[in-house]
Amino acid sequence: MEKPNLSPNINKRRGHLTKRKNKKKWLEQMPWRQPQYIDSPTEPLHEEDIESIHNAAMRIIEEVGIDFLNDEARNILQAAGCDVSSDTPTVRMDRGFVMEQIAKAPKMIKIVPRNPDRSIILGETYAAFGIVGGPPNASDLDNGRRTGNRKDYQNFLKLSQVFNCIHFNSGYPVEPVDIHPSIRHLDALFDALVLTDKVMSVFSLGTERIEDAITMFQIAAGVSEEDFDRHTRMATNINSSSPLKHDWPMLDGAMRMARRNQLVIVTPFTLSGAMAPITLVGALAQQTAECLVAVALLQYIRPGAPVAYGSFTSNVDMKTGAPAFGTPEYMRATQISGQLARYYNLPWRASNANAANIIDAQATWESFASLWACSTAQANIVFHAAGWMEGGLTASFEKFVIDCEMLQQIAYYHQPIPVSEDDLAVEAIKEVGSTGHFLASDHTTSRYEKAFYSPFLSDWSNFENWQKRGSLTTPQRANKIYKEALANYEKPHMSEDIREELEAFIVRRKAEGGAPTDF
Amino acid sequence: MEKPNLSPNINKRRGHLTKRKNKKKWLEQMPWRQPQYIDSPTEPLHEEDIESIHNAAMRIIEEVGIDFLNDEARNILQAAGCDVSSDTPTVRMDRGFVMEQIAKAPKMIKIVPRNPDRSIILGETYAAFGIVGGPPNASDLDNGRRTGNRKDYQNFLKLSQVFNCIHFNSGYPVEPVDIHPSIRHLDALFDALVLTDKVMSVFSLGTERIEDAITMFQIAAGVSEEDFDRHTRMATNINSSSPLKHDWPMLDGAMRMARRNQLVIVTPFTLSGAMAPITLVGALAQQTAECLVAVALLQYIRPGAPVAYGSFTSNVDMKTGAPAFGTPEYMRATQISGQLARYYNLPWRASNANAANIIDAQATWESFASLWACSTAQANIVFHAAGWMEGGLTASFEKFVIDCEMLQQIAYYHQPIPVSEDDLAVEAIKEVGSTGHFLASDHTTSRYEKAFYSPFLSDWSNFENWQKRGSLTTPQRANKIYKEALANYEKPHMSEDIREELEAFIVRRKAEGGAPTDF
Repeated sequence: MEKPNLSPNINKRRGHLTKRKNKKKWLEQMPWRQPQYIDSPTEPLHEEDIESIHNAAMRIIEEVGIDFLNDEARNILQAAGCDVSSDTPTVRMDRGFVMEQIAKAPKMIKIVPRNPDRSIILGETYAAFGIVGGPPNASDLDNGRRTGNRKDYQNFLKLSQVFNCIHFNSGYPVEPVDIHPSIRHLDALFDALVLTDKVMSVFSLGTERIEDAITMFQIAAGVSEEDFDRHTRMATNINSSSPLKHDWPMLDGAMRMARRNQLVIVTPFTLSGAMAPITLVGALAQQTAECLVAVALLQYIRPGAPVAYGSFTSNVDMKTGAPAFGTPEYMRATQISGQLARYYNLPWRASNANAANIIDAQATWESFASLWACSTAQANIVFHAAGWMEGGLTASFEKFVIDCEMLQQIAYYHQPIPVSEDDLAVEAIKEVGSTGHFLASDHTTSRYEKAFYSPFLSDWSNFENWQKRGSLTTPQRANKIYKEALANYEKPHMSEDIREELEAFIVRRKAEGGAPTDF
Repeated sequence: MEKPNLSPNINKRRGHLTKRKNKKKWLEQMPWRQPQYIDSPTEPLHEEDIESIHNAAMRIIEEVGIDFLNDEARNILQAAGCDVSSDTPTVRMDRGFVMEQIAKAPKMIKIVPRNPDRSIILGETYAAFGIVGGPPNASDLDNGRRTGNRKDYQNFLKLSQVFNCIHFNSGYPVEPVDIHPSIRHLDALFDALVLTDKVMSVFSLGTERIEDAITMFQIAAGVSEEDFDRHTRMATNINSSSPLKHDWPMLDGAMRMARRNQLVIVTPFTLSGAMAPITLVGALAQQTAECLVAVALLQYIRPGAPVAYGSFTSNVDMKTGAPAFGTPEYMRATQISGQLARYYNLPWRASNANAANIIDAQATWESFASLWACSTAQANIVFHAAGWMEGGLTASFEKFVIDCEMLQQIAYYHQPIPVSEDDLAVEAIKEVGSTGHFLASDHTTSRYEKAFYSPFLSDWSNFENWQKRGSLTTPQRANKIYKEALANYEKPHMSEDIREELEAFIVRRKAEGGAPTDF
């Protein structure tokens, strides 16, 4: 990254992020920047109720135990003095051990990707928003819903690169199903490293996938093994297999990442009424237990390893068993998770989720409710912040743009409100009096360009003008914007040498057979 | 209202509000009840910043003055010792006078409509949601957008009656333009009193309209003049004519209502950048000044008269002059208004607003943002809570249902979260262990019917099932629900005598010519 610049347009690395002269701006958006929450967090429960959830989680860990389906992890925990069953995969820990380990975790984490200007801070009042990760399907208005493919995958990465409100990439925005699973991670990591320079989150799906990701990052960033470990460079998210289980590949990846000083987010998927108790605080106690045992393992392995408390508690519709998101329960579970993360002094991950099948009012209120839960409770890491539909089964191009509009509004909302004498405008009010208006006053004209939030997606014209322009709905406008974004996408700088080295690595690893696919 | 019941179904008045036996429930909704906010309010500004806005408002009142375009009001204020200009309509008050008057206003208000079971409380943590008021157009999916008419007006009233999340009617949900303006208020009030028994808000559009409303209420409720005055029975909302003016009809209505112990909400429509300063706190200072002078007048006329601090500060799009709603500025202006209302110990009115032309993602995020501003800042009275579109130019039947769904979710969200030992579910988690699931556990089955919020509008089915059922969008589902609501609407009880008396009054008043239409 310290090589001389190749293009006269880019006289320093930051040149990628700022407006270039003589180039028409096709999209007015706020600059690249992490929002910082400025309100006091909404805390639905009293401190003693949080203590109660904590105690319940500790009882689960002590009395019930959690299954670690990974011999290495069980051996480590046995050596650490935990109660490791000899005939079942269950491990019980006492709360003293758990809390001692958790206390070693950092409260704030900085992730430095291949372009250090895209570094992000996780913790305290900082927010980082990531693009949707994991859906098997993609959709847009033109071609409808289809199985994910590499082209759609690449297009989502390009959108992530274009939109400043997106701070990191989480896994695959859509699964590129047209690449064979054994080598999919190689092509997908290549795209993620070449098409964007933002922080990436990689899948903990076995040894090879994690090790390949680390090696490929080192090549892409031009850093040595040692340099790599000096900073947190990337993230992985592991889900427990609720109730009360951690699977082999997730644990394997998590331990490898922790040993290399890389971020592990531990997110139980505790659907209340199905894989977790039907009561909100019961599900949250289970979420906490499942999360903390993994955090304790990782802190025991590498004290101070970057970890985050992940929350994804929602509920199922008890009539049908369908998962629900963005509901009042989801909001409260999210907010209480924020309280719990702060109780344990851990950075906190939450999500923007909805269960709608089309980008309509329901999709929007469920997503916005999710995002406002994140905003009111100060989520540090928001996965699936843009593009998720259908409970995670589809990544939508138009929903991506709609979510970005909402994310930008949340970022703007968290800017301080100036209250100077001049802002209070008594003199301007005197000047205008009761017979004038403010449109032409000096107080207005000197400020009007920057005065208000300027959305890129809203249409505020009156009905007649809106009709004249074709009666476009929000998804139709989003469709135009996502295509313009792709047309205006600019690849972030990467030297030819590095690109070739990456390609050579992939050729070699493909020849070796890639990674196993049998779990 | 104390007459014997006429129907065997209704053995007490409350019978209207509760589920009747042997009748199929066509709509699962939460019971009639006012939500009470349970979180701490979001307060964007520090106390000293609120003091700064207060001081700016006081300087506007003292140094600039507000125009009172009503001789009676000016005479009263002159007698009270205010600085009343002799050649302009401007009145200046000193802050001592204003604050002395405001201190007389009640902090909590109870409104008792013709059915006392529909009484609502305004103030502190109580929320009351009102149907949209005032649009000249109505719309639904079947017949599109049309000029408001009596049929649509009546249908909105019926919907208001059916949906438990609606606590009051605000003005006309849609303007019944097919009734001549001179007699419109008579037919419209008749419908409001006959088709619903919820609190109504009447228009302060001159002497006759207010006096007719009071008389008609007395007939409908079967109360004497004295009985009427003993309780607050109804509300009116007056808007200042910003900047810095109160018009004759609004002031006339407000003074009449205050004298009769009826609620007056004073809501400046301070659009930042147009009728108010381009700076948020400047617009809020003006809003506060315009509101407080009217409150001071009313408190001077009748100490302790029920009044509310109304807020409607938003901004215009400086590129086009179009008003914007549900923006970050709107949210912050709303939340800060809540701080100001609490600073003055007044109940506070806000709104659910959006500027969209079709019920899509934009309409939903703008409305939901408005509602969440109300929710986070604890708005006591939410006007236009259901049905508003296009910056107030259209009342939409489908949007009404969508908003009701969101309102119900907010009401549910503000229910306390239980944290008993049983809720923490450690024993249930023990029982299920790592190999089972919770769907069939006793802990689940004993609770599953009431465990979670149950929406009437959301579709959580998977994509394939959703397609099989016709791929219905949220507005299409709302369309079905609103028609079912009309089909299942039940008129609230009113005796034949009373109805005839109301009709006779209307005949007489129509013969007299109704009310003037020349302002």
